[in-house]
Amino acid sequence: MLKRIPNILSPDLLKTLHEMGHGDEIVIGDGNFPAANYANRLIRCDGHNIPDLLAAILELLPLDTFVDKPVTLMQVVDEQNEPTPEIWHEYKDILSEFQVAENQIDHEERFAFYERSKRAYAIIATTEKALYANIILKKGVIS
Amino acid sequence: MLKRIPNILSPDLLKTLHEMGHGDEIVIGDGNFPAANYANRLIRCDGHNIPDLLAAILELLPLDTFVDKPVTLMQVVDEQNEPTPEIWHEYKDILSEFQVAENQIDHEERFAFYERSKRAYAIIATTEKALYANIILKKGVIS
Amino acid sequence: MLKRIPNILSPDLLKTLHEMGHGDEIVIGDGNFPAANYANRLIRCDGHNIPDLLAAILELLPLDTFVDKPVTLMQVVDEQNEPTPEIWHEYKDILSEFQVAENQIDHEERFAFYERSKRAYAIIATTEKALYANIILKKGVIS
Amino acid sequence: MLKRIPNILSPDLLKTLHEMGHGDEIVIGDGNFPAANYANRLIRCDGHNIPDLLAAILELLPLDTFVDKPVTLMQVVDEQNEPTPEIWHEYKDILSEFQVAENQIDHEERFAFYERSKRAYAIIATTEKALYANIILKKGVIS
Amino acid sequence: MLKRIPNILSPDLLKTLHEMGHGDEIVIGDGNFPAANYANRLIRCDGHNIPDLLAAILELLPLDTFVDKPVTLMQVVDEQNEPTPEIWHEYKDILSEFQVAENQIDHEERFAFYERSKRAYAIIATTEKALYANIILKKGVIS
Amino acid sequence: MLKRIPNILSPDLLKTLHEMGHGDEIVIGDGNFPAANYANRLIRCDGHNIPDLLAAILELLPLDTFVDKPVTLMQVVDEQNEPTPEIWHEYKDILSEFQVAENQIDHEERFAFYERSKRAYAIIATTEKALYANIILKKGVIS
Amino acid sequence: MLKRIPNILSPDLLKTLHEMGHGDEIVIGDGNFPAANYANRLIRCDGHNIPDLLAAILELLPLDTFVDKPVTLMQVVDEQNEPTPEIWHEYKDILSEFQVAENQIDHEERFAFYERSKRAYAIIATTEKALYANIILKKGVIS
Amino acid sequence: MLKRIPNILSPDLLKTLHEMGHGDEIVIGDGNFPAANYANRLIRCDGHNIPDLLAAILELLPLDTFVDKPVTLMQVVDEQNEPTPEIWHEYKDILSEFQVAENQIDHEERFAFYERSKRAYAIIATTEKALYANIILKKGVIS
Amino acid sequence: MLKRIPNILSPDLLKTLHEMGHGDEIVIGDGNFPAANYANRLIRCDGHNIPDLLAAILELLPLDTFVDKPVTLMQVVDEQNEPTPEIWHEYKDILSEFQVAENQIDHEERFAFYERSKRAYAIIATTEKALYANIILKKGVIS
Amino acid sequence: MLKRIPNILSPDLLKTLHEMGHGDEIVIGDGNFPAANYANRLIRCDGHNIPDLLAAILELLPLDTFVDKPVTLMQVVDEQNEPTPEIWHEYKDILSEFQVAENQIDHEERFAFYERSKRAYAIIATTEKALYANIILKKGVIS
Repeated sequence: MLKRIPNILSPDLLKTLHEMGHGDEIVIGDGNFPAANYANRLIRCDGHNIPDLLAAILELLPLDTFVDKPVTLMQVVDEQNEPTPEIWHEYKDILSEFQVAENQIDHEERFAFYERSKRAYAIIATTEKALYANIILKKGVIS
Repeated sequence: MLKRIPNILSPDLLKTLHEMGHGDEIVIGDGNFPAANYANRLIRCDGHNIPDLLAAILELLPLDTFVDKPVTLMQVVDEQNEPTPEIWHEYKDILSEFQVAENQIDHEERFAFYERSKRAYAIIATTEKALYANIILKKGVIS
Repeated sequence: MLKRIPNILSPDLLKTLHEMGHGDEIVIGDGNFPAANYANRLIRCDGHNIPDLLAAILELLPLDTFVDKPVTLMQVVDEQNEPTPEIWHEYKDILSEFQVAENQIDHEERFAFYERSKRAYAIIATTEKALYANIILKKGVIS
Repeated sequence: MLKRIPNILSPDLLKTLHEMGHGDEIVIGDGNFPAANYANRLIRCDGHNIPDLLAAILELLPLDTFVDKPVTLMQVVDEQNEPTPEIWHEYKDILSEFQVAENQIDHEERFAFYERSKRAYAIIATTEKALYANIILKKGVIS
Repeated sequence: MLKRIPNILSPDLLKTLHEMGHGDEIVIGDGNFPAANYANRLIRCDGHNIPDLLAAILELLPLDTFVDKPVTLMQVVDEQNEPTPEIWHEYKDILSEFQVAENQIDHEERFAFYERSKRAYAIIATTEKALYANIILKKGVIS
Repeated sequence: MLKRIPNILSPDLLKTLHEMGHGDEIVIGDGNFPAANYANRLIRCDGHNIPDLLAAILELLPLDTFVDKPVTLMQVVDEQNEPTPEIWHEYKDILSEFQVAENQIDHEERFAFYERSKRAYAIIATTEKALYANIILKKGVIS
Repeated sequence: MLKRIPNILSPDLLKTLHEMGHGDEIVIGDGNFPAANYANRLIRCDGHNIPDLLAAILELLPLDTFVDKPVTLMQVVDEQNEPTPEIWHEYKDILSEFQVAENQIDHEERFAFYERSKRAYAIIATTEKALYANIILKKGVIS
Repeated sequence: MLKRIPNILSPDLLKTLHEMGHGDEIVIGDGNFPAANYANRLIRCDGHNIPDLLAAILELLPLDTFVDKPVTLMQVVDEQNEPTPEIWHEYKDILSEFQVAENQIDHEERFAFYERSKRAYAIIATTEKALYANIILKKGVIS
Repeated sequence: MLKRIPNILSPDLLKTLHEMGHGDEIVIGDGNFPAANYANRLIRCDGHNIPDLLAAILELLPLDTFVDKPVTLMQVVDEQNEPTPEIWHEYKDILSEFQVAENQIDHEERFAFYERSKRAYAIIATTEKALYANIILKKGVIS
Repeated sequence: MLKRIPNILSPDLLKTLHEMGHGDEIVIGDGNFPAANYANRLIRCDGHNIPDLLAAILELLPLDTFVDKPVTLMQVVDEQNEPTPEIWHEYKDILSEFQVAENQIDHEERFAFYERSKRAYAIIATTEKALYANIILKKGVIS
């Protein structure tokens, strides 16, 4: 443990966030996400949900302000009939604390989301149980 | 994630508990325990406290009934003046659910505890903040 | 060995099943299956037949309920003249204990089965001697 | 799988038995034996009992005829009051098929047995459930 | 060394033959074969010729009876003018001891033979000096 | 780079500081310190002097308040005739910003300092040119 | 540290520059460059800016005189409206000390620069904060 | 060092030459050749020129007599105006000692030479300073 | 294979003999020697007897002429009643070809021989079947 | 190759010299020195003699001026009757160019020299043929 570092961030996760550069992406996958199968670099956070991790990561990781939408969620399959997932409201609140507005959040169709995850710098495996909870963050710059 | 397995137990922790044999010991260290320095095998559980992990582990790991005291805590330095650590009450409750009585809990002086940890099969690094929270479990038999 | 875990499941197999995510596949190959050649991750279970392993795995591994057929067998080459393999009746019985009906079992032509095995998360090598005994399981979700 | 090789012997176990020389020892540990902790080389045979493995190994591995007792069991703790373990009768029958008489079987006190296991060439981890089932074999010569 | 195992078979070669499955191929290359360059798995048998190895391997390795020609030789470049290589007669005799008739032997053009070798499960490097001595074996089933 | 993290701290150094526990020590060696020879874990910071690193590290690393002297310098060989090294004044100023008083700084004889460095969790290799600049920090607790 | 070697050059960086041959390229990336993601070989120089490194490297590394432009910068996105980056003037001065004139400096569009970086022999990660500071050097010959 | 082995041949180089088979190629690169970048297997011979190495290698390595030109040089760029490189005369003399005539030497255009080097079994990095000194040898047979 | 190198010497064995220095020892163990257990570096020569290897090795490896007895055999246990092993006559003949007289051969008691083998640079595992065939060679100098 | 760096110094040797700190020792062994056996880190310089290497190394490596004798040779066994080795005169000349006088050269008895070599940071293996040519250098400081 260190001063200033939320204790949910393991040494490996901290090192990984640090190594990432402008435009690199990290996926926070839910408990059923095939993280071990798709990840270039795998970081396990068993026993944790995504909102706790997301808030801790954003304390250290700047988001990309050079693109319109630095945050990406997995599209709801049947958008017309399914309600907006509950957890997205939590995400919206956390992101707004870090100056990310709702219209800066992108949505990617499920299989496109998978393909993009395979190219990401790293995937975090959580045990989040909410549906449609997977989220991709694009790193911004430290100036 | 799997059926029957508490989701706080990572694949590596599960594998480690499975590999251990009768008499092997595992240490659950608090957030300041020098786990990376002392461990033969290190398992990180950043962001978790010990009671949650202890309860989950005991669902799978049998304790040694061949010895009088299969559980060991780190002795309070000034036993006469310091009160019993709060977290020990939590441990007592969890252990009693698994048929371990209070008199089956041993106490080891701090530096002896460290030396024993270096010989343990594995050490789990948590971010538990309570004092005197480190705990050693001795594995029993499956019959 | 651990409580709740069938003892036929090795630490490595248990860890592998745990790491898999929704939609990942695992192949249980018979004794002549070219497992070492095709596997991304190889788990050997020498001396075991497939039904024992299948039953043990299904106690922990949820099958995918998002697809019609989460279980796949290798197609009999001459379906018109060869009888249904004996071992499939055993599989049907085991699967029905886990709420998988016969019509949820798919059949894949031999060489397509091989290609799919090469993409699977893992292959288990058994010494099962029955013909047409190879089987693919698609992991479902823990909710 | 190969001709002449019992299918309970994995490629790794076969290779290990082959590599051993005259006087090298291999331990077959029961399901609670701390095999992963003590082994120089660990071979897992989850789901198997010891008699099946013992019989298969002896088909290939010659025992040492230069020493009086090439086979060693773990001594019963309270020899006067505990009956001879059931499984020892099975061992006796298997060993006699390979020309090893009962008086060629040694007995080693529990902790001495552990220390000797740590020096052995390899340890096999089974899930044998019988008590006092651990056994050490000393390899002989091929002439 | 082990009972029943020809002593020309090293622990690694034995393990490799064991791991192979139905349809996997192994190449026995002569002393000038670019084995280290082409092999997925390389097994060196320096100082040995091919007939000795072939005979030893066939004592353990079943050949594929599901294909017409489980054995493949490298085609003589100028078939009309070059005589049948002497060593093929030796091979024929050895193979016939294992129920492989001459018409079950295939011939592959030199560069096609090389390409196929690169896909084989393993290549054995011998120091055989005869010309046209390279040989591919396709593993069959143990039933 | 990350928010809140001084950019002189590399991902590996950050990870190492994070992994350390209460009582673990880290050495910051000068440009001539035999760091690669003595280190359990080596972290290179070529091109940097020690004061810059020290100040950055102390922003994240708590010092041990359970011991009287959590900071150790290498003793001046001829204390009576040599003046106090200039760089020690810089250290004093930096340490006082982090509530470490001058009397909390220990001094260790040169060869004892070397032996202690070999047992430290990690050694940082700088290119600091000042004499008597080596410094050992003992990690404290996060509460 | 060594005589003649600027101390900002770590042992790994020195070894890497030495190994490179005629025509091989090395990228010096700024603090936000996705170096860890793109690099065939990654060399971290945390806490350093690019001009200090560039000057030190050019003391040892000859530039390619067989091509017109052995140095490449990342093109300014909006060349018509953005001023020439300040840091380029520093680069020009350093390069001119090593006989590289301004017209020997090439400019590569951002995404082409990234693709070329992925093929470079190595990437150096600095914490340079200036914009458009990334630079590629093509090694020349020692004669 | 060994009897019969020129002492310029390191253990690794000797092993590599031995492992190569008929038709495999080895490149001896000059001091500016991008050997570390292109090599499947890299062997460094710093401080040596090529003629010394070439002569030593040819004492052990047979050249391919099945092809017309078992030796390849890098083509002079401007063949009409540049004189034949001095070092080629040295090569001719050395090669003629090993029964390779001048017309058995091929010439490959620079970039084709590079591409072929990337496919070679190994590349030797020398510090030869002569121009057009790179040379490829194709191994022949030992009969 | 290479010119001048007996083909029984594998690339690894050749490299090992080359690396050894003055005074380093290599053990050639018989088929029952516990080579894999005792060796610092293990070289397998399955299928070969010792005289063939010994003769090939001595073509390249100089023996130590600075000591009285550069060759060591394992002492016959019951020297008074057991005849001199047959294979020693073969050794004597081979050694005399390399100017080693019978009185330059030492004899070491069995367990002392084992301990010395553990300190040797390498052990060669053969499948030699003769008794008392193990032999230690001490490398001499190339001048 | 690099500017300012003698081309006899390989990338690995350069890196090693750089990593060494004040007081660390490097051994330059002759062609018969058991370098591979004794070295913590081995650097091969096959085909080179020691004077060439020594001169190149001293261009970069400062010797220790804090001790009386930063250079050590292996003592002549029979000092009274053997002449001073020729090569020592060469060494004296090279060392004097780097301000090391003859009385700063120590001599260590053969077996003490070996023991000290085992503790050295690195050993360089040359093919120097002169007797008594081994030499130990103790690194000094860069100030």
